[in-house]
Amino acid sequence: MNTVKLTIAYDGTDYRGWQIQPNGKTVQGEIEKSIRKIFGKDHRLHGTSRTDSGVHAACQVAHFKATRVIPIAKMADALNSALPKDIVILKAEYADTAFHARFDTKSKLYSYKIFSSRQKDPFHQRYAWYLSYKLNLALMRKEALALIGRHDFKAFQASDKKERSSIRKILELNIVKHKSLITINIEADGFLYNMVRNIVGTLVDIGRGYLPPGSMKKILDSRDRTQAGPTAPPEGLCLMQVKY
Amino acid sequence: MNTVKLTIAYDGTDYRGWQIQPNGKTVQGEIEKSIRKIFGKDHRLHGTSRTDSGVHAACQVAHFKATRVIPIAKMADALNSALPKDIVILKAEYADTAFHARFDTKSKLYSYKIFSSRQKDPFHQRYAWYLSYKLNLALMRKEALALIGRHDFKAFQASDKKERSSIRKILELNIVKHKSLITINIEADGFLYNMVRNIVGTLVDIGRGYLPPGSMKKILDSRDRTQAGPTAPPEGLCLMQVKY
Repeated sequence: MNTVKLTIAYDGTDYRGWQIQPNGKTVQGEIEKSIRKIFGKDHRLHGTSRTDSGVHAACQVAHFKATRVIPIAKMADALNSALPKDIVILKAEYADTAFHARFDTKSKLYSYKIFSSRQKDPFHQRYAWYLSYKLNLALMRKEALALIGRHDFKAFQASDKKERSSIRKILELNIVKHKSLITINIEADGFLYNMVRNIVGTLVDIGRGYLPPGSMKKILDSRDRTQAGPTAPPEGLCLMQVKY
Repeated sequence: MNTVKLTIAYDGTDYRGWQIQPNGKTVQGEIEKSIRKIFGKDHRLHGTSRTDSGVHAACQVAHFKATRVIPIAKMADALNSALPKDIVILKAEYADTAFHARFDTKSKLYSYKIFSSRQKDPFHQRYAWYLSYKLNLALMRKEALALIGRHDFKAFQASDKKERSSIRKILELNIVKHKSLITINIEADGFLYNMVRNIVGTLVDIGRGYLPPGSMKKILDSRDRTQAGPTAPPEGLCLMQVKY
């Protein structure tokens, strides 16, 4: 069987996340439907990241085992013709038979966008967390340094989720600003459930002065979710890149 | 009575245009509802431009005659708290009693966005016309020169609409490109119904080579709607500025 690797972009606003569910429209569900139309039968799609309800992807990767040979050059167009406008297959290609979109991942890069302005903007509300107040970015950048490297990120793990290990390695964390739009980029070898959104919620508490300097290191060391800030809302989050 | 001038931005994707209708959600309808909540009674809102279904505004202007005195500094926030996220009051201010958002307009500026790329992008599909082919922008710019100035734009007027006069003055028309995004900016002292979208549809027919050089001048002179290109879809259009 031929392993097909798909690179996918989607606006997650109107979906109940990536993963197929008994109720509600999901990204995986819509793509599996399009595969069924093209291939004439069901195929299970495996995604790199099970993005949550309302979370976006500029570059999700997924694979499936094709049961028929379809010209690969035409596959993306064929699938797109059967997909809604807010999901786009950017690329379809054959991969090694053993390729697994999720287990072979070396690192992933997420971006989290914040629109910080006195005035709201209707064109950013689907893609950024709106904050009416200003943030101290210099302090946020300084505090974020404590997170770089290999650590136990239990303090930033959703309290109802228990992955086998909560140790992950953050390779890069940077914060950039363009006009009213602040982007927090985090690359890691893996992420715990809600890890980016919990880190962002904590950084925002620091940036608005709710938490004193030195807090990030203390929170990380505490390994206690209740010490960290709130979970930032989903609309700001976007999966940007997956490295293999 | 105090005349209140509102400056409004909205993502028009999920609305049946600006103007209130018996069926369907409209921008004017949603704002009038928010005024009713704040003022406790009905007020008629007058907009500069009756944008169509799916058309956006970064800067629509509207006015109403307030029957109660409400602190103007808090009015935008109050109205926004009663509005959906895709409509934002950017500013509320008192204007001259005689001010009329529509009749006092000196000029309006519209932008039309085209996303021209082999690959679709789910984050642009609400705000730009997607074209899978390339456009000859140099030729489009050259042909567009025929439109500048005072002309009879009957060839670009929706065939079922008959405004008293089809003479308008285009003050500026420029075409800019940033990566895959092409923006056509048109400022005029007034616009006929569908005029921007019919001009854009014609420019695209020129840019893709469907119409030979010299076409724009001929089409304009013909005063015949059937000579011009198709009406570009609404999602690319945005009201950018209103001058008084």
